[in-house]
Amino acid sequence: MAEALGSAFLLAAVVGSGVMGARLAGGNVAIALLANTIATGAALVVLIAVFGPISGAHFNPVVTGALAIAGRMPRREIAPYVAAQVLGGVLGVVLAHAMFDLALLQVSTTLRASTGQWIAEGVATLGLLIAIFGGLAAAPKAVPALVGLYITSAYWFTASTSFANPAVTLARALTDTFAGIAPASVPAFIVAQCVGAAVALVLARALWPQDDAPPA
Amino acid sequence: MAEALGSAFLLAAVVGSGVMGARLAGGNVAIALLANTIATGAALVVLIAVFGPISGAHFNPVVTGALAIAGRMPRREIAPYVAAQVLGGVLGVVLAHAMFDLALLQVSTTLRASTGQWIAEGVATLGLLIAIFGGLAAAPKAVPALVGLYITSAYWFTASTSFANPAVTLARALTDTFAGIAPASVPAFIVAQCVGAAVALVLARALWPQDDAPPA
Amino acid sequence: MAEALGSAFLLAAVVGSGVMGARLAGGNVAIALLANTIATGAALVVLIAVFGPISGAHFNPVVTGALAIAGRMPRREIAPYVAAQVLGGVLGVVLAHAMFDLALLQVSTTLRASTGQWIAEGVATLGLLIAIFGGLAAAPKAVPALVGLYITSAYWFTASTSFANPAVTLARALTDTFAGIAPASVPAFIVAQCVGAAVALVLARALWPQDDAPPA
Amino acid sequence: MAEALGSAFLLAAVVGSGVMGARLAGGNVAIALLANTIATGAALVVLIAVFGPISGAHFNPVVTGALAIAGRMPRREIAPYVAAQVLGGVLGVVLAHAMFDLALLQVSTTLRASTGQWIAEGVATLGLLIAIFGGLAAAPKAVPALVGLYITSAYWFTASTSFANPAVTLARALTDTFAGIAPASVPAFIVAQCVGAAVALVLARALWPQDDAPPA
Repeated sequence: MAEALGSAFLLAAVVGSGVMGARLAGGNVAIALLANTIATGAALVVLIAVFGPISGAHFNPVVTGALAIAGRMPRREIAPYVAAQVLGGVLGVVLAHAMFDLALLQVSTTLRASTGQWIAEGVATLGLLIAIFGGLAAAPKAVPALVGLYITSAYWFTASTSFANPAVTLARALTDTFAGIAPASVPAFIVAQCVGAAVALVLARALWPQDDAPPA
Repeated sequence: MAEALGSAFLLAAVVGSGVMGARLAGGNVAIALLANTIATGAALVVLIAVFGPISGAHFNPVVTGALAIAGRMPRREIAPYVAAQVLGGVLGVVLAHAMFDLALLQVSTTLRASTGQWIAEGVATLGLLIAIFGGLAAAPKAVPALVGLYITSAYWFTASTSFANPAVTLARALTDTFAGIAPASVPAFIVAQCVGAAVALVLARALWPQDDAPPA
Repeated sequence: MAEALGSAFLLAAVVGSGVMGARLAGGNVAIALLANTIATGAALVVLIAVFGPISGAHFNPVVTGALAIAGRMPRREIAPYVAAQVLGGVLGVVLAHAMFDLALLQVSTTLRASTGQWIAEGVATLGLLIAIFGGLAAAPKAVPALVGLYITSAYWFTASTSFANPAVTLARALTDTFAGIAPASVPAFIVAQCVGAAVALVLARALWPQDDAPPA
Repeated sequence: MAEALGSAFLLAAVVGSGVMGARLAGGNVAIALLANTIATGAALVVLIAVFGPISGAHFNPVVTGALAIAGRMPRREIAPYVAAQVLGGVLGVVLAHAMFDLALLQVSTTLRASTGQWIAEGVATLGLLIAIFGGLAAAPKAVPALVGLYITSAYWFTASTSFANPAVTLARALTDTFAGIAPASVPAFIVAQCVGAAVALVLARALWPQDDAPPA
């Protein structure tokens, strides 16, 4: 329930602030993305801090998968986590549409398909997992802030604005607004995210070897 | 006194930064709202950190009511808290007008009335209370930062720019500037906020069951 | 030395970021002030965190005076503190001019004189001292962040952009750039700051009575 | 490895967010720099928090050199640290180009050569080292946040946008985008950075005398 509720709020924040930013910025995409960035980063800090003690606050299937592979959570919990994340995400998109008086069900027409964007999704997901594994090793209480700041940065330094999350990618296919991604562009994004996560797992094993053992 | 003083500063920050932002941004509403957001979020962190140990630093009748219903404060204190919040809020609006050489007493003409905005106020208040109850359960010292970040995000992801506070809503009816709300739009906002708070109480009881007992 | 060095960096940050913001923003004053705000707030957090354990990191004569009156530091240290703050501030302004290839010695021509701005300076200084006294009582380690966030907010919600500091006011009279203030406008600002500080001392005594005794 | 990986991500963040900011801002350099600032500052906090416990997370030859001179790390580690920082930085620039579908290998044509900019690099590096030495003395756990906030501020208050890092300066010579610096401008920047570092070492010895002894 925490995963679903958190994912819903996360997607409402991502999509809603994109709509608001694009509406008010009047064509200045940089300012719209700046608003989108601040709203997303701030929401992530709050949601992870609040729901972290309950569910871990992944809101992200590759994070759930990576933590399970690293032995930090039981593998049988992957499926219910991912289901909650995807359902919550879709609910959040619908909620954002309701708040802005838009059609509740939409399909994005924003193509996001270039080699650079695929590399970017790999890098973005790699960095996200490094931030999470490194944060858990160095300062577990700081993980909410680290993830929020990482995404704040990655919105700007990756060419794809850093989805880095298959559940978010799927949900954002259902909005034809600023934050949308056309369904045709979704599979390649998810593949790139999984590749980035695989590289991150190898790097994390080298950088934080003690983390292979499940923590208390 | 802490509730009144804090509410006064909060409203001075909300209304004052709205005036400043609108004046300097020269029609670019996104930049005005960005300034308004940063000023409000930063002020909330400071005010809650400073006045929290004295009064709890609610500055918000639905927060006071929800904490009382959850058994976290005596119900007989609701009335004086709400009175201090409303009086402080009105004082803060007058102070903002004085600082910007505006007429001290004004009535807003900004209609804010759409189904989306009412849903948004419900969602905004729901999220605020989840952030507060979750923060109290997970990291009480982080509550000032969590509330500040939540409002920073909610200014952008809700269609109503997230009033989420009946005292703030009433006080903002008394300014015909960027942050104002026409008196005719006030009652529906307050109803939506109470609905959101009621849903939040149910969710919080499920998510943090131990919080039903009053803390030490 | 810490007071002088910190005051120099503070003024270099205030004046330098004002020059940079105004240059790059091309007439959009809101964006220039946003840059000025972020640079000043971030610099304050760093400088107070770094120099706080050495000198207290006041960088501000009314803070020094208020702490002395509250019995938190010896009154005989007021004069050397204020001298270091003013000298450091002037040095910082000259340094900012040197970095931007401007004439080192300037006199501001920016008049800042209205009833609203004087009220604003009083409110700004009052709030700053409440943030400091309240922060010292509630969470001393958070004081650098609280002061930085307070000034971030006050740059926007006060009509005067919140000087709230006689040493800063004097030093900013020596730059004819974005952050300047004409010498003729200085005395009234300093009077307003002292009035705000006096009110703050009365309020702080009521809100945090235990603070009358000097801390260990 | 942590130094190289961290330097790679740092440069990817600096160069990538510069490209994104410049692309979206459509000629408004202030907004491009604002995006560049936020992405760089946020990335620094994350990278230093995550890699700090492994390598110290310098990502900067003058930081490595200054810590070695101050007796805080063995001098024989300077060479491998600097090599990792430069190689990582170059890799990060190439990665940023790949993400934005740009030519992987470039040479900057942006001249950055004025007396003001050289003074600015000296001041920027001086301030960075004061923030690091002061942070280590006052609040070691806060160093990631302090460095991130310092650079956030220094991007705006120094005329050079605060490179303050020879490895970053070298790597940024290899991108002909927003963040680039022409090779001809590199040597003077590095000299200025070293002068600033030397002054910082003298000041730090006076301000934090106990730091001469190597910490546990």
